[in-house]
Amino acid sequence: MAARGLQVDINSDMGEGFGAYRLGDDAAILDIVSSANVACGFHAGDPEIMAATFSMAREKGVAVGAHPSFADLWGFGRRIIPHSPSEIERLVAYQIGAAQALSAYAGHPIRYVKAHGALGNLTQTDRGVAEAVTRAVKAVDPGLICLVIALGFQDRIARDAGLTVRSEIFADRAYTEEGFLVSRKLEGAVIHDAEKAAERVVRMVKQGAIETLSGQMLQTPIDSICVHSDTPAAVAIAAHVRRRLEGSGVRVRAFAA
Amino acid sequence: MAARGLQVDINSDMGEGFGAYRLGDDAAILDIVSSANVACGFHAGDPEIMAATFSMAREKGVAVGAHPSFADLWGFGRRIIPHSPSEIERLVAYQIGAAQALSAYAGHPIRYVKAHGALGNLTQTDRGVAEAVTRAVKAVDPGLICLVIALGFQDRIARDAGLTVRSEIFADRAYTEEGFLVSRKLEGAVIHDAEKAAERVVRMVKQGAIETLSGQMLQTPIDSICVHSDTPAAVAIAAHVRRRLEGSGVRVRAFAA
Amino acid sequence: MAARGLQVDINSDMGEGFGAYRLGDDAAILDIVSSANVACGFHAGDPEIMAATFSMAREKGVAVGAHPSFADLWGFGRRIIPHSPSEIERLVAYQIGAAQALSAYAGHPIRYVKAHGALGNLTQTDRGVAEAVTRAVKAVDPGLICLVIALGFQDRIARDAGLTVRSEIFADRAYTEEGFLVSRKLEGAVIHDAEKAAERVVRMVKQGAIETLSGQMLQTPIDSICVHSDTPAAVAIAAHVRRRLEGSGVRVRAFAA
Amino acid sequence: MAARGLQVDINSDMGEGFGAYRLGDDAAILDIVSSANVACGFHAGDPEIMAATFSMAREKGVAVGAHPSFADLWGFGRRIIPHSPSEIERLVAYQIGAAQALSAYAGHPIRYVKAHGALGNLTQTDRGVAEAVTRAVKAVDPGLICLVIALGFQDRIARDAGLTVRSEIFADRAYTEEGFLVSRKLEGAVIHDAEKAAERVVRMVKQGAIETLSGQMLQTPIDSICVHSDTPAAVAIAAHVRRRLEGSGVRVRAFAA
Repeated sequence: MAARGLQVDINSDMGEGFGAYRLGDDAAILDIVSSANVACGFHAGDPEIMAATFSMAREKGVAVGAHPSFADLWGFGRRIIPHSPSEIERLVAYQIGAAQALSAYAGHPIRYVKAHGALGNLTQTDRGVAEAVTRAVKAVDPGLICLVIALGFQDRIARDAGLTVRSEIFADRAYTEEGFLVSRKLEGAVIHDAEKAAERVVRMVKQGAIETLSGQMLQTPIDSICVHSDTPAAVAIAAHVRRRLEGSGVRVRAFAA
Repeated sequence: MAARGLQVDINSDMGEGFGAYRLGDDAAILDIVSSANVACGFHAGDPEIMAATFSMAREKGVAVGAHPSFADLWGFGRRIIPHSPSEIERLVAYQIGAAQALSAYAGHPIRYVKAHGALGNLTQTDRGVAEAVTRAVKAVDPGLICLVIALGFQDRIARDAGLTVRSEIFADRAYTEEGFLVSRKLEGAVIHDAEKAAERVVRMVKQGAIETLSGQMLQTPIDSICVHSDTPAAVAIAAHVRRRLEGSGVRVRAFAA
Repeated sequence: MAARGLQVDINSDMGEGFGAYRLGDDAAILDIVSSANVACGFHAGDPEIMAATFSMAREKGVAVGAHPSFADLWGFGRRIIPHSPSEIERLVAYQIGAAQALSAYAGHPIRYVKAHGALGNLTQTDRGVAEAVTRAVKAVDPGLICLVIALGFQDRIARDAGLTVRSEIFADRAYTEEGFLVSRKLEGAVIHDAEKAAERVVRMVKQGAIETLSGQMLQTPIDSICVHSDTPAAVAIAAHVRRRLEGSGVRVRAFAA
Repeated sequence: MAARGLQVDINSDMGEGFGAYRLGDDAAILDIVSSANVACGFHAGDPEIMAATFSMAREKGVAVGAHPSFADLWGFGRRIIPHSPSEIERLVAYQIGAAQALSAYAGHPIRYVKAHGALGNLTQTDRGVAEAVTRAVKAVDPGLICLVIALGFQDRIARDAGLTVRSEIFADRAYTEEGFLVSRKLEGAVIHDAEKAAERVVRMVKQGAIETLSGQMLQTPIDSICVHSDTPAAVAIAAHVRRRLEGSGVRVRAFAA
């Protein structure tokens, strides 16, 4: 990690479909990102889509991770489904295993785990959930990397548990002074301007710090940039972020490469 | 395998529940069997039940295997859901992975794979399905044993694929002259008398042969006896089969012990 | 309603199964209750079980109602699944329709709607949910009766909406001084003694009032007594409640008879 | 029906989505068709999508019907899921009820029932399935119209049962000499040329007959033309069919208007 700040990963959610349905343009985003978070069948994904996504990522040289979530196909994993922490452990373990098997089947084993949607948000703000996801990874395969939200609960908990941790920031989301994501319900929570998003990402990566709404810079390791693929505009932002990073001398490379 | 005939496994389906529901008396059957086929969430089972079943089996010293099926919670995996062989590969791979993860989580890793219900029956009679299940096991983990129906398609196909194979007979099901299970729709397909079932099992294990309806003995390796746990009568038959086997000098022991 | 206090309904949840699974002893409880709340497929129930339950209730002369819930098969409808009130309207409308169709198919049309589990509890304490369930009933069929928790939000809201309302108390649950159910997490929340439960029910019905933990009597119409069927003990309590009511001169009769 | 041949309905499947997913361009196709077959939640659709689709159809003046299917969200209702005829009755009854309730909720009650996908195909070729769907409609609401495949089993069976029947042809599918749809696996099964499809539809409607592969005309009532909406090309064909019909003096009008 001598070169921190000069090298960063870009990750995006992938394989978000079910049966006849598809969301996002996976083929397009796979040319931009270095890591793909693959849905495991609980909020999206099925064995067909998972295997196809792992194969496509292998062909494009993109690293893959499991992207477990609450069992909420209808709500796309965006709702907080009531669970005890130990239920979450088992829910996540199940999905990691499914992703391990199908990625091995596709000849491109997963290297990391990143929690999805409402579950992912809770790993940032809820100690019990952060511990549960961490325990699931450790129990199933301690060689898997935890991809976590920078400065969130799981960031510290997973490091304390002895796991390898990589921390991500969001290309298009504003941060509070405490380093939390600004609620999507609030004005300015989401950055829609590609140039503004890209410049901000470059600043954060170069300084190794999260930029808050007020312009404060919160020091933290930044290993990955999370981008979206669900709309053409999101793909365009992602592409611009990558171009800007590379134009600024930052190499884009999977943390698990 | 020098001691073949003097040692045999007894297996039963386990962990057949969902949410608030339960079928079968797992605690009772775990005192009788040496191997437990654990439902993987597609016809029955959920992460809670799977982890609890693996833990209980560990405590009782019973070996565990994945028991994948068609995605048919409503039909309990007993219906033939239309799939291409390659879809079946991925369906089975997904479930093996989930079982590997939750059994590792419970500290008692799975050692084998046995297909459930309609899927299991097809591995006996349909070459494409037998190949698909075999390929899934080989792709996910070639160290896993295939528990197959003696004399069925998967028996030979999995051996040809270089996998370790163990063959089972059914304690309470009649066999045709070709060694297939007699359809449940026909008279005499199921043996309800515990003593009759037990004596027949002892004969088959001692002679290393399947006894057909006419009394013909078809030579085949017999590594395991499949028993049921879904009714008190089924548990009683299973217990009687074990007593008779042990009374005849046959040791009951997991093939994966 | 001239005879209030001398006549009361007894209701219980019914048809709680899915595919191969069953909970509760429906045949036994149908000899005790006068109204059956039939699961609509979202927390339990499927078209087969629903039709069979409506038929069995018709043969026993027991009135039937729809028992809608959150879409939570795994959690049996006991978890609060995040929804907007208008989503709840449509969720409930869907289930009422399914119950209307299958009860018509079975020749025994539903007469009322009672929300299940976590959704039912929210109709007592959450104005938005109470309004949503009420609006769903009114939109689908204003001739359907609302069976509500006595003194809860929906009790008043549904009456204000011009719907016919019947109010229930619980045979085995303690009440706070405000008339709410004591949380199951607290000591004394559930009454396990059949005689104690039965005497208390008789007192409440005769006085037309809910008895709180301190012995305070809160005046309210009492049209129905909710009993459980999920354990043999629950069925025994239900039977005792009915015997005691009839022994005290209270006639047990469906409010929708 | 004095004006037969001068007036015809155009129908299309609608509301095909689930949670965050959508298929087809419902807004575009609603400007072309006169009847919308609304998915009922089993192969596609959920309470939100159903209510929104019924509302949108009401605003556009398009008649609506229930579009029940096998319970096969993953397979989009295109697979034959094993069921007894009486199970199909109850499966269909459930979905009709859900559609009745949500369409009443949306202020635009359904007027007809058309079976979807694999279930729909079986109503053409399998007497038991055709009878089952017919019995479900009759039991739930004999005032509902059966929209059936012209010359198929349900066409005659539903008429014999005393139900109102409307018969459809497909704008883009070739017919065998017996009047069955040519299997999609065969060359020429689907007509991709808009002009060719439109001219053929006009010929069939004007002559009141189905045109087979060889050019034979099989006399049959033609009340509706089924078009697709799942691709931009399909929508373009549908629009062209309507233009051609109207240009030929055939009025496009819902059979249930």
